[in-house]
Amino acid sequence: MSLTTPGPVTGRAPVAPVAPSTSALRPLGLDEVAITGGPWAARQQVNGTATLDHIEGWLEREGWIANFDLAAAGTLPEGRRGREFSDSEVYKYLEAVAWEIGRLEASAGAGGRGAGERSEDASRDPAARAAALDARFRAIVDRVAAAQEPDGYLNTRFGRPGQGARWTDLEWGHELYCLGHLFQSAVARARTKPDADDGYVELARRAADLVCEVFGEGGDERICGHAEVEVGLAELGRTLGEPRYLEQARIFVERHGRGSLADIEWGRSYYQDDVALRDAEALRGHSVRANYLASGAADVAVESGDDDLLHALAGQWDRTVERRTYVTGGQGSHHQDEAFGEDWELPADRAYSETCAGIASVMFSWRLLLASGGARYADLIERTLYNVVETSPDASGTAFYYANTLHQRTPGEPADPDVVSPRAHSSLRAPWFDVSCCPPNTARTFASLAAYLATADASGIQLHQYAPSTIRTRLDDGQEVALDVSTAYPADGTVRVRVLTDAAAPWRLSLRVPAWAEGASLVVRPADGGIEQRFQDDPRSDPHGGAGYLAFERAFAAGDEVSLELPMAPRFTAPDARIDAVRGCLAVERGPEVFALESVDLAGTALEVSDFADLRVDPAVAPAASDGDRRPVVALVDQRTGARAEVPLVAYHAWAERGPSTMRVWVPVLGV
Amino acid sequence: MSLTTPGPVTGRAPVAPVAPSTSALRPLGLDEVAITGGPWAARQQVNGTATLDHIEGWLEREGWIANFDLAAAGTLPEGRRGREFSDSEVYKYLEAVAWEIGRLEASAGAGGRGAGERSEDASRDPAARAAALDARFRAIVDRVAAAQEPDGYLNTRFGRPGQGARWTDLEWGHELYCLGHLFQSAVARARTKPDADDGYVELARRAADLVCEVFGEGGDERICGHAEVEVGLAELGRTLGEPRYLEQARIFVERHGRGSLADIEWGRSYYQDDVALRDAEALRGHSVRANYLASGAADVAVESGDDDLLHALAGQWDRTVERRTYVTGGQGSHHQDEAFGEDWELPADRAYSETCAGIASVMFSWRLLLASGGARYADLIERTLYNVVETSPDASGTAFYYANTLHQRTPGEPADPDVVSPRAHSSLRAPWFDVSCCPPNTARTFASLAAYLATADASGIQLHQYAPSTIRTRLDDGQEVALDVSTAYPADGTVRVRVLTDAAAPWRLSLRVPAWAEGASLVVRPADGGIEQRFQDDPRSDPHGGAGYLAFERAFAAGDEVSLELPMAPRFTAPDARIDAVRGCLAVERGPEVFALESVDLAGTALEVSDFADLRVDPAVAPAASDGDRRPVVALVDQRTGARAEVPLVAYHAWAERGPSTMRVWVPVLGV
Repeated sequence: MSLTTPGPVTGRAPVAPVAPSTSALRPLGLDEVAITGGPWAARQQVNGTATLDHIEGWLEREGWIANFDLAAAGTLPEGRRGREFSDSEVYKYLEAVAWEIGRLEASAGAGGRGAGERSEDASRDPAARAAALDARFRAIVDRVAAAQEPDGYLNTRFGRPGQGARWTDLEWGHELYCLGHLFQSAVARARTKPDADDGYVELARRAADLVCEVFGEGGDERICGHAEVEVGLAELGRTLGEPRYLEQARIFVERHGRGSLADIEWGRSYYQDDVALRDAEALRGHSVRANYLASGAADVAVESGDDDLLHALAGQWDRTVERRTYVTGGQGSHHQDEAFGEDWELPADRAYSETCAGIASVMFSWRLLLASGGARYADLIERTLYNVVETSPDASGTAFYYANTLHQRTPGEPADPDVVSPRAHSSLRAPWFDVSCCPPNTARTFASLAAYLATADASGIQLHQYAPSTIRTRLDDGQEVALDVSTAYPADGTVRVRVLTDAAAPWRLSLRVPAWAEGASLVVRPADGGIEQRFQDDPRSDPHGGAGYLAFERAFAAGDEVSLELPMAPRFTAPDARIDAVRGCLAVERGPEVFALESVDLAGTALEVSDFADLRVDPAVAPAASDGDRRPVVALVDQRTGARAEVPLVAYHAWAERGPSTMRVWVPVLGV
Repeated sequence: MSLTTPGPVTGRAPVAPVAPSTSALRPLGLDEVAITGGPWAARQQVNGTATLDHIEGWLEREGWIANFDLAAAGTLPEGRRGREFSDSEVYKYLEAVAWEIGRLEASAGAGGRGAGERSEDASRDPAARAAALDARFRAIVDRVAAAQEPDGYLNTRFGRPGQGARWTDLEWGHELYCLGHLFQSAVARARTKPDADDGYVELARRAADLVCEVFGEGGDERICGHAEVEVGLAELGRTLGEPRYLEQARIFVERHGRGSLADIEWGRSYYQDDVALRDAEALRGHSVRANYLASGAADVAVESGDDDLLHALAGQWDRTVERRTYVTGGQGSHHQDEAFGEDWELPADRAYSETCAGIASVMFSWRLLLASGGARYADLIERTLYNVVETSPDASGTAFYYANTLHQRTPGEPADPDVVSPRAHSSLRAPWFDVSCCPPNTARTFASLAAYLATADASGIQLHQYAPSTIRTRLDDGQEVALDVSTAYPADGTVRVRVLTDAAAPWRLSLRVPAWAEGASLVVRPADGGIEQRFQDDPRSDPHGGAGYLAFERAFAAGDEVSLELPMAPRFTAPDARIDAVRGCLAVERGPEVFALESVDLAGTALEVSDFADLRVDPAVAPAASDGDRRPVVALVDQRTGARAEVPLVAYHAWAERGPSTMRVWVPVLGV
């Protein structure tokens, strides 16, 4: 990979989770991109209502917000509830609410363009909903603020008589981790509501100042057992223009691998304290920690111009995606330590594939995409969003998977919607967990999802993810450009981009061609009735020299239409021959979605009474799209009885929505 | 399976770990069977010297014996070291020493017949060594005894000011578990040294009385989170003729599945408290707990004539062996909860296969074998002894595997022989562990190994395991029988049994034919020069009606010789088609030993520089025995380069004895 030399980003910072001061691609924020329809808009609608209500309800019910009240009242540790990192769930919820307010206000400002925002119902009015959420945000911030110590320290689990002293359990205490999430939520608030007078950003600043004072050069030389403060400090530094925070993030990144934390059962690789980050070959150890750290390191590398570090991270990403990532994009094959396995260690049935690891992987990939371009980063983001992040919540947005197995052998019991799950792995989605990091993590991701769709650079605009959406931004040369994207993707493969603005000078529109989309083409239909042009994806052009984008450049006129046509036939996917766990198996994909065989779909077929372990897929029969619902249909055979049936598969992210079932993504091939 | 109706066992109880008051087969103890040569004698020799010294050294060094001193001094909890179950390691060590004393004294009594006991060196004199061990045993017992409370309670972790109150943490506290090991060690002492005046058996009796008082009918209705007290109480009851202890064991067994313990992250199945034992379909949850509980339940079933329970246990054994057991005999496919996976969930690379689970499985299988006969039980015992239990210690007997993976992808660092390993899984054997249950568990098993070789019943004698050995017992009809077994098994397949005594009446000699030994035959050569007779194993005769034994009955005369001839050609083993993790792979076995491909054996071949993940076995080339060391040789191909070589495999139990390496038992087949 050849890293480009990024130019300076012009204009004000985007309303987005990541806003590098310099990068190859400039992210377009929530004020520039809105998702207006399709499955992601539906998910955002559910997320912004049912899911946020659900999360706040459980945070109150479990006492994790009330812990701040107890801290303010000076009565801790008595009555404190939740694990050592419960503060962070409150911050992630605040971050989700902040992004949702930003999304709604952008929608309201654009005349309520959002898909779910067209109702006449007042409760559906984006501005009214934003205002209601803002009041809720402020109410919680007041409770959090009251718990902050005069010197900026903020944690409900440490530092008081009867509690562990501050910073005495960096291995497991999660103090800096919690602050990292505080910083990220403050960033979301600062970017979506820069004029808010709630004091939240200042609260974060005081905490960050304390972190720099305690852990800066010459101070405590350790790191946090759970990376996160790095990425939080880096972005807070960018937001506030505070180089000390970026420097502190750099210090924490560089300190990894010095063994400042204790050796533990799972080794120091668990918290990436075994090898210096720039010397590692792949992500390793706890998958969320690894990806959060890599994300923060990417920020540090970009801001400090540390191309060596960026190169190292890109190399780790490559190896991790080739050898340590499931077909779903999921990462982490160990339940015990929630960790990456070794190369090729990808058991389908013991896939941990934590939802948070998927989200963290999106964070890391997005940073590399911004830093250097490269469709493969957007490919993994898409794969992970559809098949890990979207798998976590059910349709109602109020029950979640924490771990995302690729093979369920026994149907489980339905989760009680009123009971906290004591375990990360369950056969059906649960409302809440003892360790409930994933629900608020999905919420902040979905609320800010529009910020991952498109970027701009000096050449023009790049579309990385496809959804019905509107894009309105100003190019580096000052031209304002507006686009309307209409598509039924991923049900259908046509993505139609309609240009809404006349350009004074040529600019380039680049559309990502996913790696699976062999034979994709780009059709340009000028508004002036000029000749329709068609471009095949071979050779593809990348905005930065690599493969993976089809681009067209002209002085676009309003009414010009550029259509990407992606082949959407279901396809068999064979695993890498070096993966032991799924040797002799095939998966089925269609577009960006991975499909699964679910036992409920055997009902009424000749295989209804078959032992699930005896089912084999006939590789000679290509998966076909069914007539009704576009679900791929495969030919299955019972290897014991010889019974045979055509069975529709289910989108992996939608499995376990029809009651207890068994499921497998990788199906053994007949005759192997 | 049809359970036989056991007849009463006559004569005095054997010097053996299990002595049912009634059973189908009567175990022959250390006073009746001695292993005189071959690999097991070598292991016993190392175990009785280096391993016992090593364990006692670490128990002292880590302070786990000293905890009893602190308890006696009244200074606890200050200074207590080790995990909550560290007392049990002291008891298991005492049990190992007790059996070793018994083994040595039997050897001395028989004129020092033992293989390793022929030296002129005084330190090798069995009687002298037994006396030295006896002194060490007594010294530790004195320290343990000083810590016992007046009411019989004994645990260094609970019950004192500053410690948790007694019985307040049955989920994790291991109090009853520790006492179960105390009882087993007292049983070993009582059976090997019935006249010992050290008070150890009385100490155990006081503790057992307390357990009955606290947990008996009408008392505390809970169970221990780690089964073990059941099997300990049952055997102590048998030894002391105390039905209350057997009844208490029965109560504990029956209480499993009532949810008296808390639900936890891994579910109540972790400690078998989810389903009543007689209703379960297979062993489940924590593999050691499951097997210890099943062992205790088998004892209870036998003593109480509970055939339903025995049937249920036998059914669970069948299903567990078919679907939840590795080719090595190893059990437990989860690292996280050290637990069985679901049916067919047997990842080679994440095999936990804890050494203690293997030992516990031997305990369970042995009880079923005694209760009802059946060569399959002895088959699994053999498989597990050779490929799990013997894999744990290295040749020196001073470094151990705790978990026994079947696939090592990256060579690890050599373990520091002076440092405790914080983890159960390591690529090379470690001297000691934070959780060090396995080393003393192997020690007690090896010291008592002779007790698992042979049984007797009204028909005669059954040989279940083959090693150079002597057997001398009295049949039910009063005849004394002595046998000398000579064999180079498992290097060679001939097992020669020479009868040393003249019989007045016919009796039957039964020799197990392992399930893999197709084409085995039995040759009888009468001492009087009569006609040599040969019997093929089809149909095989079981002493109790099943297949799996070749038997010959006559009024044997001294000098008669019965030879079993087992086919020992290396063989490919294909996995069950329902196991996903090793689909498209083959293993190689020879006799009872599983073999493995180890990277060090690629040195000097055309595959020396191959990526281990690219190696494939050519299934068209049958594994051949190499000339020199009888290691099977297979044809391997690099699927990328096409390079090819003939490579010798290593006995799985001997892997990782030649420095850091990668290893795999299941090798992918070329072309799949």
